[in-house]
Amino acid sequence: MGGPEIERLIFLFSKLPGFGPRSARRIVLSLLKHPQSRMIPLADALEQAAQKVKICSSCGNLDSNDPCQICSDSYRNHEVICVVETVGDLWALEKTEVFKGYYQVLGGTLSPLAGVGPEDLNLVSLFKRLERKEVKEIILALGATVDGVTTMHWLYDQLLPWHVKITKVGQGIPMGGSLEILDEGTLTAALTARRPA
Amino acid sequence: MGGPEIERLIFLFSKLPGFGPRSARRIVLSLLKHPQSRMIPLADALEQAAQKVKICSSCGNLDSNDPCQICSDSYRNHEVICVVETVGDLWALEKTEVFKGYYQVLGGTLSPLAGVGPEDLNLVSLFKRLERKEVKEIILALGATVDGVTTMHWLYDQLLPWHVKITKVGQGIPMGGSLEILDEGTLTAALTARRPA
Repeated sequence: MGGPEIERLIFLFSKLPGFGPRSARRIVLSLLKHPQSRMIPLADALEQAAQKVKICSSCGNLDSNDPCQICSDSYRNHEVICVVETVGDLWALEKTEVFKGYYQVLGGTLSPLAGVGPEDLNLVSLFKRLERKEVKEIILALGATVDGVTTMHWLYDQLLPWHVKITKVGQGIPMGGSLEILDEGTLTAALTARRPA
Repeated sequence: MGGPEIERLIFLFSKLPGFGPRSARRIVLSLLKHPQSRMIPLADALEQAAQKVKICSSCGNLDSNDPCQICSDSYRNHEVICVVETVGDLWALEKTEVFKGYYQVLGGTLSPLAGVGPEDLNLVSLFKRLERKEVKEIILALGATVDGVTTMHWLYDQLLPWHVKITKVGQGIPMGGSLEILDEGTLTAALTARRPA
């Protein structure tokens, strides 16, 4: 349909997460309506980002600079490190503008089934930072999944010898959530985590 | 988040149809994991397509060649032209591999509210082809929307003086559709279009 250039573009889009051949065709068609104002800028932006963006050697974040914007911000709280699974989780937490410490991106969770072991997690730079003896608290902000909880337990054991405060993010009813539609696991966690009103 | 390159890329993705800031972040994150194998090829493909793809001067299709693959295929049936609204409609029909004539892409429908008049529709090349007196049938394959039907009626009047057979695509129950969930308009059309079983 429309020659090799269009077909290649549709193919590449159809390989992106959340895309199939139909949605890829739709997006390519909408792009082809504005070749100069949409396609060329997008091509440039992709190339620029591919060339410039690197993994922060300190925390594992993605940024055009190494160390990343967050790690090079000396106004943040050096005493707290928040451990997250992915860069997406870090970005989501940053958007809340609540946390002002530093991060550590594991790059995944322990998963025996997927063959992910401790050596696959980005932890060396965390222990390096712990050696500087500035850190007082480590927040474990991993997902409430089987692998997330397993990783949390394992990390807890690894962090014990460092004598820092180890906390984990609260579990319970999400904002706007109605009890009726929530699963039993969440409701149990919410009941267990009850506090004085 | 992550510097100007990442932010620009997220912004550009978030402007694509069906995208918002969240889905744009998700796609950019997934791309950033494979800068060389995914981002650079996608950037290249976008640039190539933006440079090469043009509008077919004969039918209005998008293709790397003008006239397009379809219009330059002399094995197709010169006697039938199928009129569609968009290039997406043309591609959808081509995928069925049922129609072997030529197409005419209007580029939209008449729409007084959106300020689209007859002069905005790609019709000149249709009348040029009619002048060659080869065409025996024009199939109106426009959407069953208010604007689609209006355009169909208007086109019918324009085509009458050319003394060609004018047909429109069948209306009724879509494949796999259950009567219960279909709207009254579709059911009425299906009843009206009934044929011997």
